[in-house]
Amino acid sequence: MDKASISSTEGKAIRCKAAILRKAGEALVIEEIQVDPPQAYEVRIKILCTSLCHTDVTFWKLESGPLARFPRILGHEAVGVVESIGDNVDGFKQGDVVLPVFHPQCEECKECKSPKSNWCTRYTNDFLSNTRRYGMTSRFKDSFGEVIHHFIFVSSFTEYTVVDIAHLVKISPEIPVDIAALLSCGVATGIGAAWKVADVEEGSTVAIFGLGAVGLAVAEGVRLRGAAKIIGVDLNPAKFEIVGKRYGITDFVNPALCGEKKISEVIREMTEVGADYSFECIGLASLMEEAFNSTRPGSGKTVILGMEQKAMPVSLGSYDLLRGRTICGTLFGGLKPKLDIPILVDRYLKKELNLDGLITHELSFEEINKAFDLLAEGNSIRCVVWMDK
Amino acid sequence: MDKASISSTEGKAIRCKAAILRKAGEALVIEEIQVDPPQAYEVRIKILCTSLCHTDVTFWKLESGPLARFPRILGHEAVGVVESIGDNVDGFKQGDVVLPVFHPQCEECKECKSPKSNWCTRYTNDFLSNTRRYGMTSRFKDSFGEVIHHFIFVSSFTEYTVVDIAHLVKISPEIPVDIAALLSCGVATGIGAAWKVADVEEGSTVAIFGLGAVGLAVAEGVRLRGAAKIIGVDLNPAKFEIVGKRYGITDFVNPALCGEKKISEVIREMTEVGADYSFECIGLASLMEEAFNSTRPGSGKTVILGMEQKAMPVSLGSYDLLRGRTICGTLFGGLKPKLDIPILVDRYLKKELNLDGLITHELSFEEINKAFDLLAEGNSIRCVVWMDK
Ligand SMILES: [Zn+2]
Ligand SMILES: [Zn+2]
Ligand SMILES: [Zn+2]
Ligand SMILES: [Zn+2]
Repeated sequence: MDKASISSTEGKAIRCKAAILRKAGEALVIEEIQVDPPQAYEVRIKILCTSLCHTDVTFWKLESGPLARFPRILGHEAVGVVESIGDNVDGFKQGDVVLPVFHPQCEECKECKSPKSNWCTRYTNDFLSNTRRYGMTSRFKDSFGEVIHHFIFVSSFTEYTVVDIAHLVKISPEIPVDIAALLSCGVATGIGAAWKVADVEEGSTVAIFGLGAVGLAVAEGVRLRGAAKIIGVDLNPAKFEIVGKRYGITDFVNPALCGEKKISEVIREMTEVGADYSFECIGLASLMEEAFNSTRPGSGKTVILGMEQKAMPVSLGSYDLLRGRTICGTLFGGLKPKLDIPILVDRYLKKELNLDGLITHELSFEEINKAFDLLAEGNSIRCVVWMDK
Repeated sequence: MDKASISSTEGKAIRCKAAILRKAGEALVIEEIQVDPPQAYEVRIKILCTSLCHTDVTFWKLESGPLARFPRILGHEAVGVVESIGDNVDGFKQGDVVLPVFHPQCEECKECKSPKSNWCTRYTNDFLSNTRRYGMTSRFKDSFGEVIHHFIFVSSFTEYTVVDIAHLVKISPEIPVDIAALLSCGVATGIGAAWKVADVEEGSTVAIFGLGAVGLAVAEGVRLRGAAKIIGVDLNPAKFEIVGKRYGITDFVNPALCGEKKISEVIREMTEVGADYSFECIGLASLMEEAFNSTRPGSGKTVILGMEQKAMPVSLGSYDLLRGRTICGTLFGGLKPKLDIPILVDRYLKKELNLDGLITHELSFEEINKAFDLLAEGNSIRCVVWMDK
C-alpha cells in the first residue's frame, strides 16, 4: 500500500463528536469523545450518515436490566467509510464504503455455511458485550476518560466508531449513502422476510401489520414477487395514502375503525378465508396473534419481525395451529448480511428495487434528538442524520 | 358389468352388527343396525378391520358441545372392501380394497389442486355433518328406527359403513389389511409430518414427544430421511426399549426423570443448541411449548400433530420466536389422502417403509371395548379389531 494513502489518524486515538445517552429517556448530549484504534478483526469507520430505527428508541427508553447501560452511544442503521483497519482484517481497506450491521456473520460456523439459517451460532447469542471479541472492552471514552458503552456492536451516533469485521459489509460506492444506510437494518429485514423467510409467490394475498420502514420494505418485497393483494394495517391512514400506495399496497385496514370486529376477521373477509402471508412489523404480542389469525388454514404463514416491546409471550389457539398454519420469527429477515446486502444494493442500482419516499426527514447531527420526536409522533418513516451537515 | 358380479345387497338396506356409543364414556354396545344404500358420490363398504386411535377416545369421552352426539358409531382407522356404489361414483367398483379417511380431498378446489396444502377448502371446515354432501342425514338406524350419528365421515366400528368418495382411497390389495388400516390415520399423519411438513433432511437432530403410533411413524419418516439423532420423549421407557429402538430412535428422555430441568433444557443439552426439528404427538399445550423450546435458534422447526386435549392455547416466548424458530400444525401430516396414501402403500410393499411392531394387540369385534382399556393403560400402540373374528 502506498504510504501516502494511509490516513494520518491510523494507529492513533481519534477525538470527535458523539451523541451520548447518559440516562434512559433523556436527550442525547453531543460531546467530544475519544475513539481508540481498531484491534485485531476490527475496523474503524467514519460515519457518513445514520438513521433512527425503533430499536434505538426501545433501548433509549430502557431503564434497567443487563441490556441497559450508561453512558452509551446508540445508533445501528448507518453507512460509513473505512478510516483504518486492525490486524487480521481481510476484505476491507481504507476508503471502502461499508455498512455496519448489528446482526453478525462469522462466515465460519455451521449456520453461516448453511443456506438454511442466518443465525451465526458463534456470535449471535451475545448481546451483552461491547466489542465482539473483547467482551466489555470499549473503544470509546469521554473527555474525563470514562468508558462509554457500545450498542449492539455498531454505535453509529458518532463521527467515528469501531466495528468487528463480523458486523461489517462492503458495498458499492455507487449507491446514495442515505439509501445505503436503510439497507443496514430495517429495510433489509423487511425485504428479507418477504423473500427468504416467507418466500412469497406470485398471486399471493398478504397482510402487513405496521407501515413503517420495515412494513413498507415487506410490501416492496412481496410486490416484486407478484403478490395479488397487499393489505396494510396501520393506525395512520397517511402511511397508506402518501407512501403505501407507491409500494403496491392495495388495501388498507385501520384498526381504530374495525368496530366490534377483530382485525383478523376483517382480513379474513377481505381474502375469502385468510391471507396467504402475514407480517408483524410492530412488536406487540396482541398484533402477532391477530396476524396469525388473519392467515388461511392449510398453508397460511405468519412472520414476526417486530421485537415485542414488553417481551410478552404470544398466545396461539392450538386448533388454529393444527389447521395447517405456520408462524415463525426472524432477525435481519433471514439474510446473511455479507452475502445478501450487496445483492439488495445491486437490485437498487438496477432500478428493480424501489426505496423512494422512505426517507421522510433529514437532520444535521446537532439536531439528532429531533429524530426521536419525529419517530414518536408517527409521521416519520425514516429520518436520516447527516454527520457532516 | 356382468349382472352376476353385482352384490345381492346392492340398492338395499343391509342389516349388520355395529358397536354403538350411547352415552359418553360408557362401553360401546354391539347391536344390530340398518345401513342404507349409498347415495350419489357415496360408497358402501364392508369393514375388514379397524384400529383404535386417540381421537376415538377423545370423542368417546366428549360429553357436550356440538361435536358430542349420541347414539353414534365411532372408529376412523380402518380398511374395507367396496360392497356397492352410489350414482356419480368414478374410480371405485365393487370388490375394491379401500381406506376410509377422515380428512377429505375433493380434488377440485384450489387447495386440492395446489401442492402447498392439503386443506381442502371445499370440505375441510365442516366437522359437524354426518354425511359430507347431505348434512345431518345419516345412513345408520338402530333396530327401533332411531338415527345413529356418523363420526368424522368414517364410522368404522360397524360391519358396513357408507363413506363419501372425498373420504375414500383405493389401495393395492397386496398390502396386509391390518397394516393398511394404520395408514388411514395415525401412521400416515406421522410420516407425512416428517416428509411433507417438516421436510427433514439428512443429518438432522429430531425430538419426538410421544412414542405412540404417530410418534413412531414420525421416527420412521425421519429415519428414512437420514436423521442423525432421534430423541424420543415418553413417560413409558418400554416404548423406547421394545419398539422405539427398532424405529431408529437413538436417545430417550423420560420427563419423570428430568428433575429440576425442563425437558427442553435436557434436549438442548443433548443437541448442543437445540434440535433441528421437534414433533408434538400427544396433544398437550405444555408439551407443545417444550417441543418449541427444544429447537435450535435460527432454523428450528416444531410440528404440532396432537389435538390439544382441552383446546388450550399455546404460549410462545416472542423473543424465542424472533430467534428464527418456526412452529406449525398439521392435520393428516400435510398429505393429500388419494395422492399420498398409495405412495406409502407402495413403499411398504417395496420393504422401504418399516411398520413392524406397531400392532401390539388384536381383538375380535365382540371384544372392542378392551381396545379402549389397552390404549388407556399406555401399553398398546395400535390395537386392531377384526370384524370377522
Ligand atoms: Zn457464524
Ligand atoms: Zn434496526
Ligand atoms: Zn378440495
Ligand atoms: Zn386418528
